[in-house]
Amino acid sequence: MQNGQKADIQPLIDMAIKVYEERIPFNRILGIQVKTLELTRALVRIDMRNDLVGNYIQGILHGGVISAVLDATGGMLASVGVLNRMADAPREEMTGRLSRIGTIDLRVDYLRPGRGEYFHAQSHILRAGRKVAVMRMEMHNDQDLLIAVGTGTYIVG
Amino acid sequence: MQNGQKADIQPLIDMAIKVYEERIPFNRILGIQVKTLELTRALVRIDMRNDLVGNYIQGILHGGVISAVLDATGGMLASVGVLNRMADAPREEMTGRLSRIGTIDLRVDYLRPGRGEYFHAQSHILRAGRKVAVMRMEMHNDQDLLIAVGTGTYIVG
Amino acid sequence: MQNGQKADIQPLIDMAIKVYEERIPFNRILGIQVKTLELTRALVRIDMRNDLVGNYIQGILHGGVISAVLDATGGMLASVGVLNRMADAPREEMTGRLSRIGTIDLRVDYLRPGRGEYFHAQSHILRAGRKVAVMRMEMHNDQDLLIAVGTGTYIVG
Amino acid sequence: MQNGQKADIQPLIDMAIKVYEERIPFNRILGIQVKTLELTRALVRIDMRNDLVGNYIQGILHGGVISAVLDATGGMLASVGVLNRMADAPREEMTGRLSRIGTIDLRVDYLRPGRGEYFHAQSHILRAGRKVAVMRMEMHNDQDLLIAVGTGTYIVG
Repeated sequence: MQNGQKADIQPLIDMAIKVYEERIPFNRILGIQVKTLELTRALVRIDMRNDLVGNYIQGILHGGVISAVLDATGGMLASVGVLNRMADAPREEMTGRLSRIGTIDLRVDYLRPGRGEYFHAQSHILRAGRKVAVMRMEMHNDQDLLIAVGTGTYIVG
Repeated sequence: MQNGQKADIQPLIDMAIKVYEERIPFNRILGIQVKTLELTRALVRIDMRNDLVGNYIQGILHGGVISAVLDATGGMLASVGVLNRMADAPREEMTGRLSRIGTIDLRVDYLRPGRGEYFHAQSHILRAGRKVAVMRMEMHNDQDLLIAVGTGTYIVG
Repeated sequence: MQNGQKADIQPLIDMAIKVYEERIPFNRILGIQVKTLELTRALVRIDMRNDLVGNYIQGILHGGVISAVLDATGGMLASVGVLNRMADAPREEMTGRLSRIGTIDLRVDYLRPGRGEYFHAQSHILRAGRKVAVMRMEMHNDQDLLIAVGTGTYIVG
Repeated sequence: MQNGQKADIQPLIDMAIKVYEERIPFNRILGIQVKTLELTRALVRIDMRNDLVGNYIQGILHGGVISAVLDATGGMLASVGVLNRMADAPREEMTGRLSRIGTIDLRVDYLRPGRGEYFHAQSHILRAGRKVAVMRMEMHNDQDLLIAVGTGTYIVG
């Protein structure tokens, strides 16, 4: 367990992962698999599929897939911070609170063509306030080449 | 026909619309319908479907759908500028040129929850250089409420 | 007086203008003159001086001047919203509240060289929440050419 | 000397440093001191002065100083790439080329109040294309706390 993570939030995180992977329809379209979700880091994987292609001549990932996955990866990490702060609140309140976390703004820089069999996106925290969190995200391909980076600002309180 | 638009690029634009709607797999997932594509403006429509939902409690559009559609709408407008400049080039060269247009960076501001039966995204030109174009985009819902805005920088030459 | 503006905030706005023009040292360096400050719009003028030049060969405004002025113009408008919401609070509380308004993030797009004898920057509201406000800004030169645009996210509560 | 840096560009870099520190008027206002300028990294220092203050109650750096210094630090690194590519061109051509390097867009995230006696800004390369370069920047204070981060897109060819 990490520094600052309360012992009893692991079940909450597991519940959140289930939500992100199974209950958010567009995440299923993107094929988001949550590999790691901790207090200070989220790691997500997607596998290349034809549906996710943008440039059909070169067979590369659509920019919209990249921005959507980066945004989701940052938002997950923001939600863990919220879960941690309200670990003792009743479960019902949590679902409500999680559903109010939202992206305020997002910047994505597309650095290299999205070529690969699979891709990893991860996020870490730049700013963790009580009202607003700022996350930095990166996407690498299966050769560990940096495909894109992003910064997202999230409302968390 | 608009100011500055060469007479003979209409067939090229029609071809580009076909590509954007039918041949880009992830655009089909998003359900992008090109309503207007001119030298200075692009207008796109998407219809709400369950697959596009992010917040399943509130039934609203996934942020990743919003950023993907805004980016695509800006990129289309950037491509019309390229088509117009090379209207006399051989057709084969054009496909190659179009496929090299790419988003350098994108900022999206999410202003209101994406509630609605359908959504319109449009773009206009902020900067039209020979190497780089900057586009501004907006998305409105079926009540004409402004859902999100974006700015994209595209490589065009 | 505008829709939604409380009658008694004009003296507060006048006080805020004085602060922005006279008591913020770097605003004096920039030469910020507040022309209009209302509930939904801020308009600022700066005059060209040698100190503000970036490209000395072409004699144009430094990009840093542009981003600083755009940010300040958005921040002013965010502060009027805060003043309006707390118009009945004691004066001391207001100074404290105003001094906690801050820019979370800023995007600036530089569209044309900053040539001119003077420049106008204005802002309007994209999102006015209780915790976060999003402002859009524009700068024009003395020929009314659009020099730069920006979007700023501000913490307001 | 670094990997990829041509032997003979050191004098050119030294000349560029002189320009950035002495010949750009607004950089002198900011008090920019170039500590390191290499092929893959730029490091700049500014000292706190009253003129650079934004929040006079708390005595902290104006956000406009932060964005200006970050932008300048990214731009310098972009210019070294240009110098390196044209190391064999005549000197006159270089000045012209350098003066055409420009910021296309900039995003700044303000993470902590700008408190300190001095500040360091540094940049590294995210994308180094022939037409467009993308740089990432960071500013730390004298306690090595991260004050702000930024991403800039520059036109370089």
